[in-house]
Amino acid sequence: MNDQVDLNCDLGESFGAYTMGNDEEIIDLITSANVACGFHAGDPSVMKKTVRMALQKGVGIGAHPGIPDLAGFGRRTMAISAEEAYDLTLYQIGALDAFVRAEGGEMQHVKAHGALYNMAAKDASLAEAIAEAVYAANPELILFGLSGSELVRAGEKIGLRTANEVFSDRTYQPDGTLTNRREPNALITDPDLAANQVVRMVKEGKVQTADQTDFALCADTVCIHGDGAAALEFARRLKDRLPEEGVKVEKIGSRFSRK
Amino acid sequence: MNDQVDLNCDLGESFGAYTMGNDEEIIDLITSANVACGFHAGDPSVMKKTVRMALQKGVGIGAHPGIPDLAGFGRRTMAISAEEAYDLTLYQIGALDAFVRAEGGEMQHVKAHGALYNMAAKDASLAEAIAEAVYAANPELILFGLSGSELVRAGEKIGLRTANEVFSDRTYQPDGTLTNRREPNALITDPDLAANQVVRMVKEGKVQTADQTDFALCADTVCIHGDGAAALEFARRLKDRLPEEGVKVEKIGSRFSRK
Amino acid sequence: MNDQVDLNCDLGESFGAYTMGNDEEIIDLITSANVACGFHAGDPSVMKKTVRMALQKGVGIGAHPGIPDLAGFGRRTMAISAEEAYDLTLYQIGALDAFVRAEGGEMQHVKAHGALYNMAAKDASLAEAIAEAVYAANPELILFGLSGSELVRAGEKIGLRTANEVFSDRTYQPDGTLTNRREPNALITDPDLAANQVVRMVKEGKVQTADQTDFALCADTVCIHGDGAAALEFARRLKDRLPEEGVKVEKIGSRFSRK
Amino acid sequence: MNDQVDLNCDLGESFGAYTMGNDEEIIDLITSANVACGFHAGDPSVMKKTVRMALQKGVGIGAHPGIPDLAGFGRRTMAISAEEAYDLTLYQIGALDAFVRAEGGEMQHVKAHGALYNMAAKDASLAEAIAEAVYAANPELILFGLSGSELVRAGEKIGLRTANEVFSDRTYQPDGTLTNRREPNALITDPDLAANQVVRMVKEGKVQTADQTDFALCADTVCIHGDGAAALEFARRLKDRLPEEGVKVEKIGSRFSRK
Repeated sequence: MNDQVDLNCDLGESFGAYTMGNDEEIIDLITSANVACGFHAGDPSVMKKTVRMALQKGVGIGAHPGIPDLAGFGRRTMAISAEEAYDLTLYQIGALDAFVRAEGGEMQHVKAHGALYNMAAKDASLAEAIAEAVYAANPELILFGLSGSELVRAGEKIGLRTANEVFSDRTYQPDGTLTNRREPNALITDPDLAANQVVRMVKEGKVQTADQTDFALCADTVCIHGDGAAALEFARRLKDRLPEEGVKVEKIGSRFSRK
Repeated sequence: MNDQVDLNCDLGESFGAYTMGNDEEIIDLITSANVACGFHAGDPSVMKKTVRMALQKGVGIGAHPGIPDLAGFGRRTMAISAEEAYDLTLYQIGALDAFVRAEGGEMQHVKAHGALYNMAAKDASLAEAIAEAVYAANPELILFGLSGSELVRAGEKIGLRTANEVFSDRTYQPDGTLTNRREPNALITDPDLAANQVVRMVKEGKVQTADQTDFALCADTVCIHGDGAAALEFARRLKDRLPEEGVKVEKIGSRFSRK
Repeated sequence: MNDQVDLNCDLGESFGAYTMGNDEEIIDLITSANVACGFHAGDPSVMKKTVRMALQKGVGIGAHPGIPDLAGFGRRTMAISAEEAYDLTLYQIGALDAFVRAEGGEMQHVKAHGALYNMAAKDASLAEAIAEAVYAANPELILFGLSGSELVRAGEKIGLRTANEVFSDRTYQPDGTLTNRREPNALITDPDLAANQVVRMVKEGKVQTADQTDFALCADTVCIHGDGAAALEFARRLKDRLPEEGVKVEKIGSRFSRK
Repeated sequence: MNDQVDLNCDLGESFGAYTMGNDEEIIDLITSANVACGFHAGDPSVMKKTVRMALQKGVGIGAHPGIPDLAGFGRRTMAISAEEAYDLTLYQIGALDAFVRAEGGEMQHVKAHGALYNMAAKDASLAEAIAEAVYAANPELILFGLSGSELVRAGEKIGLRTANEVFSDRTYQPDGTLTNRREPNALITDPDLAANQVVRMVKEGKVQTADQTDFALCADTVCIHGDGAAALEFARRLKDRLPEEGVKVEKIGSRFSRK
C-alpha cells in the first residue's frame, strides 16, 4: 500500500529519419523515462536529445535495453541465453549512461523492453542475468519489473532496489498476469476505469481480475503509453486523478533514499 | 624523443559466429588493446571476453569506436556530421566502459577506428567532435591519433592527454602522411627495417620518407597488427628489439601521471 | 521536348514499427513508384504491401536501391567500390522483383536512392556498375537518373532505356546541377512556380537557372515528394496543371515500347 | 528407397571482412550448395562469388534464407509470424535469384536455415508460409526439409517437389527427430559409422534409433558440414563410400524431371 507512485513511459524510440512517439508532450505527464538504447529502437543522437530533455524536465532517466531486433521493435520472443542477456543489458546501460553523465545527470533505473521484459518476467535465469548486469553497472540503479515477476525477485535477491510495475490500461488474470492482448477485454479503454484501477492498485495493493476476484500486488510505478492522442488523454486523466485521491506522483528515485 | 613507447593493437574484432584475429597470441606482445565496440566489429559478448583477457594480462584497455558499417568493417569513408561523430563515439565509449568497470578495471584510452580515424586525422570538426566525446566521457582518458594529426591537436586543445601514433610497417610521405596502400612501397615487409624505423621514430623523433628526407614526428605508441603469422612475427621482433635499443615498452597510461 | 511525362515518388519507406510517408495518398497522384528495398529503408513486409498497392493502382513499379545505411536513411555519402555498387544494386532489384512477380506484376524501372543516386550522377564507374546491375537483372528495365548525369549516360551506353529525371521544387545552377539544399533559394516553395518550371522543362526542354540563363535538359520523369501536407498539395497542383498545358501524365513504361 | 542421393552443404556464409567455412574445398565434395542470403550470414558480394563458383563446379544452387539475426547466425529461435516468414523467405530467394540469373544459371532449390528450418519442421503455419513463398518465387524450385517434417508436408501440399533431408553425423530418436545436441551420443564421430548410417537411410529407407529400433524415413539429400578438417574428411569418406554401395551421388535437380 503506497501513498505515492511513479509514472513511467518509453521515450527516445525514434531512429534515424524515423520518428516515433510524442516525447515532447508525454514527458510533462510522467516522472520517469525509459530511454531506448539502440538495439530495438533509438540511436546515439536520439539518446542524447532524449537525455537532455529528461534532465531539463527533472524526469528520472532509465535505460530501456532490448533485444537486437530493430525490424521487430524488440517485441519478438528470441531464444537468447542468460549470458547474452547479461552482455546486451550491460552494453546498453553503459551506452546510455555515457550520455547521462556527459550531460551532468545520473541514471535512476533500468527497465527491460518488450520481449526481454516479458521473458525475464517468467524465466528466472534470464531475470538473474539482467539483475546481475544492472548491479554490475551500478548497484544504486533501481530495477523495474512486472509486479511480482521473476525479474523483481532477481533484483531483490542480488540487492538492488526494485520497482513493481503495474498497467493502467490492461486487465489482469486471476494469477496476476496480464490478459493476453489477443483476448477480448484485454484492454481498458475508459480512462476513468483505468484511473480507478490504478488508484486501487496503489492505495489498496489490489486489482480486480477477470473472474471478479482480487489479486494482491504492489504498485510502485505505472506504465504509461505516449503514442497517440488517446494515450495522452489517458495519461492526463491519471496524472490529475491520483493527487485527488491523495496519491503523490513522484519519480521513483525520490522515494528511495540512496543506499 | 622518447625512451619508452606503447605498443597497441586492435582486439575484440570477432562478431557473433565470426572469428577474427589472434587475440590470445598478440595480447602477450602489446601493452595497449583497442577494443571494438559493436559498430564496425565486436559485439557485447566479445567485448566482455576481451576486456577480461586484457585485465588479466595487465594490458591497457581502450575503446575503439567506429562508424556504423559492419558490412564494410568501418573502413569505408562515410559523410557523417560532427554531431554524429560525437554521438557515436560517446555511445561506444560508454558501452565498453560498462564492461571495463564491471570487471573492476579502468579504461585507459580511446582510438578511433578505420575511416573514423582517417577522417578525423584531416577534418578538424570531426576531430573536435571526437575529442569532445572522449572528454565528456572521462577527461582522464588518453586520446590516440595519427602523429601530428588534427585529432591529436583537437585532443590537446580540449585538455586531454594524447598519444601520437606511428606505424612500423608503413612508409611515410615527405609531408608525414602514410603512403597510400595502393602505391608500391607502401608497406615495409622486412621486420628488421620495420623495427629500425620504429626505433628511430621513438628515439630520434624522425622518420625517413619516400624522398629520402627526414620528417619530424612524435612516437608515443606504435600500431601493431595481429592478423596472420607474419604480423605476429613482426610484433615479436619489435618487442625484442626495442629494449635492446634502450627503449622501454610500457603501456601509455603508465607514462602519464593522472591529472 | 516531350508531350508526356512520368511523375515518380519514393514509396515503401516505412520499416518495422516505424511509419514514413503518406503512401496511400500520394499514390493516386503519381504514375511510377520507387520502392525501397530494405537497405536504406523498407523491409520485406513493407515491400509486399507497397507492391500490392502499386499494382492495384496501376502505377509503374521500380526498385529503389540504396546504400546499407538504415541509420542515415541512405543519405550519407559512403565510399563504396564500383563492385559493391553492382552487388548491392543487383541484390535489391532481385529482392523487390520477387514480390512484383509473386503478385503477378512486372518491374518497370530502377532508381538509385539518396547518396547512391547522387554519387552515380557524377562518378562514371559507379554509374556503370549500377547500369550493369540493372542490365544483368533485366535488360528491359528503365534506368532513372538525374537529367544529363553519368548514370543516364551509363544506362544508354549499355543499352538500357533511360529516363531523365527533373525536380519541380528545386532550383538549378547554370551547369544544370541542383542548387545545394543549404543555399538560400534552393527550394521552390510556390506550387505555381514549381508547376511552371516543370511545364517548361517538359515542353521546351529548358529550365531557367540561378543566373537567369536557360539550361537545356530533358524531362522524362518528375520527382515528387510525398511527405507532408504541403508536398501532397504540390503534387496535386502539378498533376492538374500538366494536362491543362497539353502534357499527358503517364507512366514511363507506357511511353517506350518494349524492345 | 533410393539408388541415388544428393549431398548438400551451406556455403557463402562469409560476411564483409569475416571469413567462414572452406567453400573452395567442400564444393568439390557436394552436389548442391545452400547459399546464405544476407540475413543470418552472407552479403551481396559473397553471394555473387559463391554463385559463380557453384556454376563453375556444376553444383546445384539453392537459396538458404534465415531469420534476421546476424549476431546469432540465425540460430536463435525467434517468434516471427507466418506472414513474416513468407516475406523474408521470398525476399531472400529473390535476392539470390538475381545473382543466379545474372550469371546465366538457374536456381535449383530452397533450404531454410537454422532456427527457421527447425521451427518450420514442427510448426505447420510457418512451414506453409515458407512453402508458399517458394512456390510464389518459382514453382519449379525444390523445397528441402527435415525428412518427414511439416516443411516437407507443406511443400508437397502446395505442389512443390520436395527433398527429404537426413544427417550423417547425428543420431536419431525413436520418433525420427534428431537427438538434441546437448545430449550425449547426439553426434556420430566415426566417419565409417556415419557413412553406414547414410547408406542404410538411402538404400533401405531406415535408420537405427537411440533405442535400437528402426525408424522409416526417406533420404533424398544428405546434409554435409564444411567447417574444419574433420568435416572435410567426413564428406570425403561419404562421397567415396556411396558409389561403392551402388548409390549414385547426383544433384537433386537431375533426379526430378522439370514439371
